[in-house]
Amino acid sequence: MKTQALLLPLFFLLLVGFSAAHSRKIIQSHKPCKRLIFYFHDILYNGHNSKNATAAIVGAPAGSNMTILAGQNHFGNVVVFDDPVTLDNNLHSPPVGRAQGFYMYDKKEIFTAWLGFSMVFNSTQHRGSINFAGADPLMNKTRDISVIGGTGDFFMTRGIATLMTDAYEGEVYFRLKADIKLYECWSV
Amino acid sequence: MKTQALLLPLFFLLLVGFSAAHSRKIIQSHKPCKRLIFYFHDILYNGHNSKNATAAIVGAPAGSNMTILAGQNHFGNVVVFDDPVTLDNNLHSPPVGRAQGFYMYDKKEIFTAWLGFSMVFNSTQHRGSINFAGADPLMNKTRDISVIGGTGDFFMTRGIATLMTDAYEGEVYFRLKADIKLYECWSV
Amino acid sequence: MKTQALLLPLFFLLLVGFSAAHSRKIIQSHKPCKRLIFYFHDILYNGHNSKNATAAIVGAPAGSNMTILAGQNHFGNVVVFDDPVTLDNNLHSPPVGRAQGFYMYDKKEIFTAWLGFSMVFNSTQHRGSINFAGADPLMNKTRDISVIGGTGDFFMTRGIATLMTDAYEGEVYFRLKADIKLYECWSV
Repeated sequence: MKTQALLLPLFFLLLVGFSAAHSRKIIQSHKPCKRLIFYFHDILYNGHNSKNATAAIVGAPAGSNMTILAGQNHFGNVVVFDDPVTLDNNLHSPPVGRAQGFYMYDKKEIFTAWLGFSMVFNSTQHRGSINFAGADPLMNKTRDISVIGGTGDFFMTRGIATLMTDAYEGEVYFRLKADIKLYECWSV
Repeated sequence: MKTQALLLPLFFLLLVGFSAAHSRKIIQSHKPCKRLIFYFHDILYNGHNSKNATAAIVGAPAGSNMTILAGQNHFGNVVVFDDPVTLDNNLHSPPVGRAQGFYMYDKKEIFTAWLGFSMVFNSTQHRGSINFAGADPLMNKTRDISVIGGTGDFFMTRGIATLMTDAYEGEVYFRLKADIKLYECWSV
Repeated sequence: MKTQALLLPLFFLLLVGFSAAHSRKIIQSHKPCKRLIFYFHDILYNGHNSKNATAAIVGAPAGSNMTILAGQNHFGNVVVFDDPVTLDNNLHSPPVGRAQGFYMYDKKEIFTAWLGFSMVFNSTQHRGSINFAGADPLMNKTRDISVIGGTGDFFMTRGIATLMTDAYEGEVYFRLKADIKLYECWSV
């Protein structure tokens, strides 16, 4: 009898603990709680393609050419973009979202960039945004950037996106594959 | 007797768990652990208002006019700002902080921007900073960006800020209402 | 007998809880789980030092000089950088990594900047990157910015970096000391 009196509050405490953990539905784990693979397509304005271009150089060191990438591995070029996001590697596939933000080439010796952008979704499949920031040493086959937050379906998420250059055509077009692994998921 | 011997370590373990959780005082929950509402006021430099201006265009695609917003929904314009933050919608109310950072217009078809900034507080009420990043599709009535971190009173915080355009006067003045909901609070 | 029957599932639940917490190895605590001190060295391009320069002005308000910092406390100047990171305050020490990203001066009245950058490591000691964002009111002796994420050895980390200006030589060279305190560590 005395034992049961002691056990009851214990069970109660465990129950409270488990249900609290359950109602919050916040997953933090080394195994991705969500994984998404997207392609995004960047067409740089070169002075002649304003209709199709999805990106433009908006900053450059003094004396640099502002319409085509130039100089020491494009060092200092700042590019603003609004790229279509597709599920496969075809530029003409129906976009499921947009990748919007900027990159800046930040190294003289080799190509490397710094990225700050969002993937913005507004379809039946995904609604909300995922925010990214990080270094993109684009000569590496794969490189990791941080998922620093999210909204809507991606409320409060965090994770890692592995980027791969899937195609590169001259100075005008490139296609990135983004393998997004979310390790912190707050159910909505 | 044997039962009590078994129960004691159990109670101890539970106690350790609860007190550890208490001493860390880290709240992660779907209900905001802190909520703040602020207004910020952006006066864009137009070539004639250098004294009052709180923001200036510092980057633009080749050939763009750098003092007034122009072209395809301002696509590519990069703006640096240091805006007063007030508790109500009056530009002339005493500022409780500053919103400092940048936005860039990143879409040709409609107005949309990407924001990276901090709210910096140094008053008796709040001391420290809150850092923000995210897409701002400013034609939407409300839009959510991420709170990606904080310092001082806002040590290690994360959350969501819902932005609303509260006023817009030509190309020179706009006022944003920011409804900041913090879902991760580390007590200081 | 009945008591033991009740205790066994309890022990089991506790065991599951503790081992789950252990296998994830995610530390969130008010005491730093990792602390790193680095120096980084910024040499601004002034029109004559393109070989040694590690940073360049790439954006400025209309009419501003793009090679040297000018005007109202450099308001509006956007600088892209790729700075060597060293363990001590000697510019000529072997770099252990690079600090890559941008800062923009965002205040007319005093010097203050907004920073977005990564520290990128690729040595036997550290491999991966740490991502930073925040306001840098650089006239203050110390100022805190957010660690918003990390990759590789710094997988999913969060924290605070305290910056101190360690040296400042004219408009061309400055050295920052970064005292990085990580409060969220995900073991790798």
